[in-house]
Amino acid sequence: MALEVVIRPIDGGVAAPAGFFAAGVRAGIKREDKYDTALLYSVRPAAGAAVYTRSAVWAHPLTLTRAHLADGVARAIAVNSGNANACMGDYGKQAALAMARAAAESLGLRTTDVLVASTGVIGQPLPLEKVCAGIAAAAAEIGGLRGAEDAEAVSRRKESARRAALAIMTTDLAVKERAWEMDCAAGPVRLGVMAKGSGMIHPNMGTMLCFITTDAALPQPLMRDMLRAAVDESFNMVTVDGDTSTNDMVIMLANGGSGVTPAGEDLEKFRLLLNAAAVSMARAIARDGEGASKLIETCVRGAAAQEDARQIARAVCGSNLVKTAMHGEDANWGRIVAAAGYSGARFDPRRLGVSLNGLAVAAAGEGLPFSEEEAKKRLRSAEILIEISLADGNAEAVAWGCDLTHAYVDINAGYRS
Amino acid sequence: MALEVVIRPIDGGVAAPAGFFAAGVRAGIKREDKYDTALLYSVRPAAGAAVYTRSAVWAHPLTLTRAHLADGVARAIAVNSGNANACMGDYGKQAALAMARAAAESLGLRTTDVLVASTGVIGQPLPLEKVCAGIAAAAAEIGGLRGAEDAEAVSRRKESARRAALAIMTTDLAVKERAWEMDCAAGPVRLGVMAKGSGMIHPNMGTMLCFITTDAALPQPLMRDMLRAAVDESFNMVTVDGDTSTNDMVIMLANGGSGVTPAGEDLEKFRLLLNAAAVSMARAIARDGEGASKLIETCVRGAAAQEDARQIARAVCGSNLVKTAMHGEDANWGRIVAAAGYSGARFDPRRLGVSLNGLAVAAAGEGLPFSEEEAKKRLRSAEILIEISLADGNAEAVAWGCDLTHAYVDINAGYRS
Repeated sequence: MALEVVIRPIDGGVAAPAGFFAAGVRAGIKREDKYDTALLYSVRPAAGAAVYTRSAVWAHPLTLTRAHLADGVARAIAVNSGNANACMGDYGKQAALAMARAAAESLGLRTTDVLVASTGVIGQPLPLEKVCAGIAAAAAEIGGLRGAEDAEAVSRRKESARRAALAIMTTDLAVKERAWEMDCAAGPVRLGVMAKGSGMIHPNMGTMLCFITTDAALPQPLMRDMLRAAVDESFNMVTVDGDTSTNDMVIMLANGGSGVTPAGEDLEKFRLLLNAAAVSMARAIARDGEGASKLIETCVRGAAAQEDARQIARAVCGSNLVKTAMHGEDANWGRIVAAAGYSGARFDPRRLGVSLNGLAVAAAGEGLPFSEEEAKKRLRSAEILIEISLADGNAEAVAWGCDLTHAYVDINAGYRS
Repeated sequence: MALEVVIRPIDGGVAAPAGFFAAGVRAGIKREDKYDTALLYSVRPAAGAAVYTRSAVWAHPLTLTRAHLADGVARAIAVNSGNANACMGDYGKQAALAMARAAAESLGLRTTDVLVASTGVIGQPLPLEKVCAGIAAAAAEIGGLRGAEDAEAVSRRKESARRAALAIMTTDLAVKERAWEMDCAAGPVRLGVMAKGSGMIHPNMGTMLCFITTDAALPQPLMRDMLRAAVDESFNMVTVDGDTSTNDMVIMLANGGSGVTPAGEDLEKFRLLLNAAAVSMARAIARDGEGASKLIETCVRGAAAQEDARQIARAVCGSNLVKTAMHGEDANWGRIVAAAGYSGARFDPRRLGVSLNGLAVAAAGEGLPFSEEEAKKRLRSAEILIEISLADGNAEAVAWGCDLTHAYVDINAGYRS
């Protein structure tokens, strides 16, 4: 029986769940006068879990965050954009710790209850004084938001959270924050999320950061497993340019502020909400890929095994040839078949079918006659759905990417400093 | 003791070794009036071996070639550009066979002694009548070249081989053919090569084809192993856009026309010659990558294992972020470290060093102070050498790629038909 989940979009981003506050400030890290330092705070201890980059090279904030999450509890996250704090040796290690200390002091927490994230240029010293002053300013703003519950206070709290979402951006064009409310048997719970995607600042790494808050009460090991599964079907299925950053990280905090512990069917519903939230951010990141003009969604069905479906979906979204063909609005399905072919997945090419925004262009491994005019018309859309059908089994996967444009080259060939 | 190998570049490409002839003609497959059909012929049975695409989807010519090479012997190779003969079901299978039959009839050979290769658009029927007429015309040209040994005949033979090298090109800008002569104890042997790289025709797949001829006498199993090893260190280390084609293939024929069977030290020298020939074509393919303005060579030293070195070298050459940075002549070494990080290789990031065209920019996992002006000057070069030093062991690897430019997007976003 299908589970029916009613979720209501609400305002407030990561500060929508009860007991969470967020703020973003301009600390002067970026050359332009932009928001660059964010602070996220929970009024009570929260269960915390994170998923880290699969790169062998970890930026310093990731190492610190993992250490501070060893007990599965956190109260705050300090984030800066404009500098990755990566490949900086002992200075970098101390800088990450200094950020946590600054947040702990300003918010009255233990240093080990503060997590840290950074995004920006690699191999340049983090301007610690500015960042720490920014964290203190953000903490002061959060202090000013607490207590009052009138309409104006609620509105200020939302605006403050939005500035936090702004402060984690690099060359992202769109702010990525959302929140939802869901009814459980014991009452409503809320989930908020903010993310940044593959963007460059005076170009550097395309880092993916995502912060998820919920006022549901969740046992930490369960939340950790749910988060890993959600990341696997969302952020791990996004490819903007195939590069994985030293700084990629997804952190989730559950502070129980709703007084509700989802269980049974409610827990399943919450799991779906978490997955939907992660997919929504993954899509937003793909759509906002550097220089992108189109979101590409590749859906593979009928694979022998999940991993085969995932490999094909990711290879198609990651293929420069597919990306340029979609940019050119060209139904060049041969490139899609070719990407599936080199993906590493096992499948029978003689049973492969392809459709582009609903138009079948290949079946049983061969091209179908189709109207190029109709294909061109359908590919003019800002969203392109590539559907690949196999007849090898029942496994499915979806991946997201974007087209490859002149603007990508311009953004990334620009000089660092 | 290092082996000293003296090899002399000679003219004639794949027809330089004794007993080989090649021709290229305009059969009308491509829309423009360009060479599109090539025929390579050995006057005597040759040991034959091939290395095929690692894609799960094989174009029809590959399946046929593998079948015809089951006995390890071949006499001719028929090649067309402008159509990949891929994903065409039974028609494609029959078309590949028809090409072999046409060559066999024209040259007086058994069909199973003819190999076939194609490159071009996927999923469109090969215009068989044109291709077979082209093969017959090429065979007639080869017939006219045989016998005479005067200077004019030799010159015509070279020109004919050059037209074969032209006929396998798609959007390649440079003809890729070379030949060398090497002295063995029993006399000289020759090796010729022609290749085409990642190019598109009314854009389609970027296919890599390479044909190697030698008049050395080589036992087939030995030659097959030598070819595989050479391909592994050359073509398998080239990445233009990360895509692997359904049609990629390297074929080698050794017809013993020199009367020399290299053995002992001579065999080791021949192995080095074969490797050098393959690397020379791999570099030419990378340099001529679509829209490329720079050749990028990544050299990894000090890895714990060969596979680690290979993974890092390939990931760096394949990174869109590295490719755009090199296009922008920006010493953005963070992107290089990041690519090494996600390559899947095991290494200690704290011991990693990077230099760009000889300028050290990072050591012990951290950035070094360097003059941006000097870096910019060095990166202005048409060839960029990225050297990555680890201190984990003694394994090395080299990979080749090119920068990512507006022209790449233009070529590949252009409409197919």
